[in-house]
Amino acid sequence: MTLRIGVIGTGAIGQEHIERLSHKLIGAQVVAVNDIHEETAKAAVARLGIQAKFYADPHALIKSDDVDALVVTSWGPTHEEFVLASIAAGKPVFCEKPLAVTAQGCKNIVDAEIKHGKRLVQVGFMRPFDLTYRQLKATLDNGEIGQPLLLNCKHFNPEVGESYTTPMAIVDTLIHELDVLRWLLDDDYVSARVIYPRKTSKASNHLADPQVVILETAKGIVINTQIFVNCQYGYDIQCEVVGEQGIAYLPEPNQVTIRKNAHVQRGILMDWKKRFIEAYDVELQAFINNATSGNFTSGASAWDGYAAAVAADACVKAQQTGNIEPIVMPAMPIFYNK
Amino acid sequence: MTLRIGVIGTGAIGQEHIERLSHKLIGAQVVAVNDIHEETAKAAVARLGIQAKFYADPHALIKSDDVDALVVTSWGPTHEEFVLASIAAGKPVFCEKPLAVTAQGCKNIVDAEIKHGKRLVQVGFMRPFDLTYRQLKATLDNGEIGQPLLLNCKHFNPEVGESYTTPMAIVDTLIHELDVLRWLLDDDYVSARVIYPRKTSKASNHLADPQVVILETAKGIVINTQIFVNCQYGYDIQCEVVGEQGIAYLPEPNQVTIRKNAHVQRGILMDWKKRFIEAYDVELQAFINNATSGNFTSGASAWDGYAAAVAADACVKAQQTGNIEPIVMPAMPIFYNK
Amino acid sequence: MTLRIGVIGTGAIGQEHIERLSHKLIGAQVVAVNDIHEETAKAAVARLGIQAKFYADPHALIKSDDVDALVVTSWGPTHEEFVLASIAAGKPVFCEKPLAVTAQGCKNIVDAEIKHGKRLVQVGFMRPFDLTYRQLKATLDNGEIGQPLLLNCKHFNPEVGESYTTPMAIVDTLIHELDVLRWLLDDDYVSARVIYPRKTSKASNHLADPQVVILETAKGIVINTQIFVNCQYGYDIQCEVVGEQGIAYLPEPNQVTIRKNAHVQRGILMDWKKRFIEAYDVELQAFINNATSGNFTSGASAWDGYAAAVAADACVKAQQTGNIEPIVMPAMPIFYNK
Amino acid sequence: MTLRIGVIGTGAIGQEHIERLSHKLIGAQVVAVNDIHEETAKAAVARLGIQAKFYADPHALIKSDDVDALVVTSWGPTHEEFVLASIAAGKPVFCEKPLAVTAQGCKNIVDAEIKHGKRLVQVGFMRPFDLTYRQLKATLDNGEIGQPLLLNCKHFNPEVGESYTTPMAIVDTLIHELDVLRWLLDDDYVSARVIYPRKTSKASNHLADPQVVILETAKGIVINTQIFVNCQYGYDIQCEVVGEQGIAYLPEPNQVTIRKNAHVQRGILMDWKKRFIEAYDVELQAFINNATSGNFTSGASAWDGYAAAVAADACVKAQQTGNIEPIVMPAMPIFYNK
Repeated sequence: MTLRIGVIGTGAIGQEHIERLSHKLIGAQVVAVNDIHEETAKAAVARLGIQAKFYADPHALIKSDDVDALVVTSWGPTHEEFVLASIAAGKPVFCEKPLAVTAQGCKNIVDAEIKHGKRLVQVGFMRPFDLTYRQLKATLDNGEIGQPLLLNCKHFNPEVGESYTTPMAIVDTLIHELDVLRWLLDDDYVSARVIYPRKTSKASNHLADPQVVILETAKGIVINTQIFVNCQYGYDIQCEVVGEQGIAYLPEPNQVTIRKNAHVQRGILMDWKKRFIEAYDVELQAFINNATSGNFTSGASAWDGYAAAVAADACVKAQQTGNIEPIVMPAMPIFYNK
Repeated sequence: MTLRIGVIGTGAIGQEHIERLSHKLIGAQVVAVNDIHEETAKAAVARLGIQAKFYADPHALIKSDDVDALVVTSWGPTHEEFVLASIAAGKPVFCEKPLAVTAQGCKNIVDAEIKHGKRLVQVGFMRPFDLTYRQLKATLDNGEIGQPLLLNCKHFNPEVGESYTTPMAIVDTLIHELDVLRWLLDDDYVSARVIYPRKTSKASNHLADPQVVILETAKGIVINTQIFVNCQYGYDIQCEVVGEQGIAYLPEPNQVTIRKNAHVQRGILMDWKKRFIEAYDVELQAFINNATSGNFTSGASAWDGYAAAVAADACVKAQQTGNIEPIVMPAMPIFYNK
Repeated sequence: MTLRIGVIGTGAIGQEHIERLSHKLIGAQVVAVNDIHEETAKAAVARLGIQAKFYADPHALIKSDDVDALVVTSWGPTHEEFVLASIAAGKPVFCEKPLAVTAQGCKNIVDAEIKHGKRLVQVGFMRPFDLTYRQLKATLDNGEIGQPLLLNCKHFNPEVGESYTTPMAIVDTLIHELDVLRWLLDDDYVSARVIYPRKTSKASNHLADPQVVILETAKGIVINTQIFVNCQYGYDIQCEVVGEQGIAYLPEPNQVTIRKNAHVQRGILMDWKKRFIEAYDVELQAFINNATSGNFTSGASAWDGYAAAVAADACVKAQQTGNIEPIVMPAMPIFYNK
Repeated sequence: MTLRIGVIGTGAIGQEHIERLSHKLIGAQVVAVNDIHEETAKAAVARLGIQAKFYADPHALIKSDDVDALVVTSWGPTHEEFVLASIAAGKPVFCEKPLAVTAQGCKNIVDAEIKHGKRLVQVGFMRPFDLTYRQLKATLDNGEIGQPLLLNCKHFNPEVGESYTTPMAIVDTLIHELDVLRWLLDDDYVSARVIYPRKTSKASNHLADPQVVILETAKGIVINTQIFVNCQYGYDIQCEVVGEQGIAYLPEPNQVTIRKNAHVQRGILMDWKKRFIEAYDVELQAFINNATSGNFTSGASAWDGYAAAVAADACVKAQQTGNIEPIVMPAMPIFYNK
């Protein structure tokens, strides 16, 4: 049985996902597309050589009997509306991050999904599907370093444009750590503070770069996360977990080591797209499997999307106040226990 | 369009390939199976939950109009017969190594394929599909270390059973280096010699272990390959290329680095199956694509299978004589130029 | 010309220094010793096979015409008295850390030395003499990673006894970072804060372990230092400098890498004594050279000892208040410009 | 008691040793120098600010009552004469490599020393005094990888001049491996063969570069040594020991690791002088101690110098014949048992 998927939003990421669903993954077929720009959608369909009908009305697409499940890759502010509509239609929906642009918006989705009585929503947080994060989590879950006490993480980009602002360091960049670290530690955040080191000369006037965000969790774990989006040297995602008996490190992507020009050297990625490319495949295959079986046993839930949004709000506030800002989450409903 | 595949031989590797073709890869369906043990074949079909007809006669399966392409995973000595029959039927065939148990057998297949006038055969050498070997080849092809001059390779296994003999170090173990290094260097072997170091106490009486096999290529590159099948510590595949301007190293599989018990440590695989698991997927997907398009643009050709067999024969002779044994290959027919 | 040295305090570190001065370094001779336990001093002299006279009165030793320079390795609270006496006698003095047990005590020594008009005091901070720290400083000074923005340091010990208290994490442990990082960055601290992560189960009830101490410098550099004195796995000193163009790492001590038991592994020291053993030699040789030439061109000055004490006081206060505590240092007198 | 040393030959290495003996090491004083160029010797004495008398006649220097021990750093072909004279005078002598320019010359020294009845000669092979080789030997001696079976070594230089010839790859370059590996393995060589890989375009017409030298030992260990004196990228000494239970690697010199320009990189030395600089100090201090005590308990003996010469002769012959050349050493006289 093939899952018939409708895609809302055929921009860059939308087209990537259509290509995955059509030519890389198994068990799905993209049968319907929508975009505010009709020609963009139709060009994508043609370029990717698939049979998919264009719907001018996203809600008609969501309701269509030809569509079993939705993939929402439209503009962020529209996510809440389309996800709620998918739930109303009782159809599984994969929504790219953010689930909604406000924590309240995420909460609305959580409430609607619970009211519906069955999980339908998967949020596009791909890092928990990355092999290296899975290896690190396995190391922790096996107790190889004892209880985690302290984390040191880095989210470094070579550079960002003028349009990148200080809050974006949280909502666009740190948001991935906010998601994956909850999953890695099976824990929740209770507070956040932000420290601004000496600023790099490579950053625009209006951007604080680098930034240090210190999170504390319900278990008391301190997470030291460093964001540096003009680090020049590469796209570098690091995660180091200090436990009671040792330290475990997130593996880095495979690269050929070379001895040359008086150095032993190994490449570092410059393009973030390459770092988690396989994770996108695994993530979307998981959605196909979840939607086909009707049981969402993997992937970020609406609750995870909500939790990330709440934490991000507190981090942004901490950027402004310089204080330790509490992160208050209600207890997770049984509904979301996997 | 879905490629309808018939599988001959449903033992361990046969079942693994059936599972890949059915549940991991796209564009193919296993519609027919054969095995000398009917119940084995039928049990496999049932376990894997696929719709595939059992053929008692492998030649009937090969000729069946329901079958577009063949996968031969039967007992080695039968490969030649089934591959020749597939060529006779004008159908694409994927044959697990060895292509044939003698160099002459491989040559017969090469001759038949050339006579047929179109490539149909892909041999199951998976290493060129491994990401890390592809990274290493890209490094060499980009000229990052200049012309290769000297290689140092290791093929180490934790241990082998009593039944493992000295010649098997060549035909079962080194055979993978014999294939992948020709591809890596785009070169052919001209001679081989074998040196026996001090023997490990962990090897059975009848087994020389470790062994050093030194190959020379048409370009004059010296390849120092070390086989150690009772090394105890892990399954370890290493390849180091010394070029005019530097050294390049085959990346090792991702592992979590840990600081613990007075050591910085990183795991080494103990199970060879895990090392090239993804490569098997890529290899078989390539076969599906080759067979569907009718153009064999990737994967080991019958000629590659023949070349590996010729080199292996010389290495086995060198084990016995202790001399430098020539490796004589006819020039590759234009037919096989990719 | 040989420098005739008198040693006050012949405990463990005292005896180590006497051995260095007598059998490893050049240009010095230990001619006089003092200790509150006469027999300890005399036993040390005998054991080390040196010709040194025992003085029951440390001040007589300091004033003795047979003594050119002093090495103070007595109990911490006595350091100030003996260093001031050495200055009064106009004799070069090497004082083990701490220079004095209070910042005011250090300041008294600074004032006395300035009043004397010539540098005479070297404090026993050995890390700036360690080869690996010198390599790291050279990397920074060469501008290889641009301006430093952010540091991540670790001072980990396998374990400590019951008697080790939370403030000792600063005054006995962090004190070395407080000294070496000022030297490494050529900068001064302006504030400190302390964060307590989840506590390890390996620490005694009265000890907070691990601790995170965050320092900020006059240049705006943020230093994230992590102290973990029951980390179990080893004595591990790490220092990572994030600059505008890259990251530089303190090299770790040479160890043999081994592939064994399914791991690639490299040893980590368990005994702190071994980590900086050569640095002690270089440090004391520098003192001999400084004292012989009369020009103190290397090694920690009384001012450095004072600065470390002021910073340590602020860190201890920060442990108690949980606030960001200012670190206020007067401008360094020209007198101490090297 | 200070050892009064006479130095014969005040060229580059001679001056370095005089500086060590005078300003770095303890227990020695250079009191006499000789060189075929009087002005060179006197300029060195002046530059190094030492009190040393110039002797026009090296034999007068050797016999002088003011001289306790000799350091021979003159032109290679003169070594045998001066070492024999030192033995005749019953004085300890440190002789830079080669001990003599022929195996017979070395044998003559061995015979003279045995006849004298007491060890007096130390040969200037410094690698066994290098910390990293000592760490590797300790690993082997502790049985951490079981019995050694196979070694892979590299002796790479960035480049050599026109005057460097193929045999020099043995007598000037490999000679260090020939010495240190006997010590490392506590074994003797029984045969050598040489293989010439594809030649680098960076080497002069008359030079075979790289070269592979394969040695076998009395214990059956196979040593694969690769010499590449125009490798461009650095001065790189590697040694990897494959044992029954694992592999141990010679540590590389400490270097700062840097993340920069899309790479993780660590420096490699370009200048061979820096690689073993500390080893020279330890080696010469050992000679001072040996000579002072009268017991040669460390350092290369005349026998070691002889063994290296015999092995080198066989390797040079193997370069010419392409055959496996036997290396025949008489049993080591009890006289040299340490």
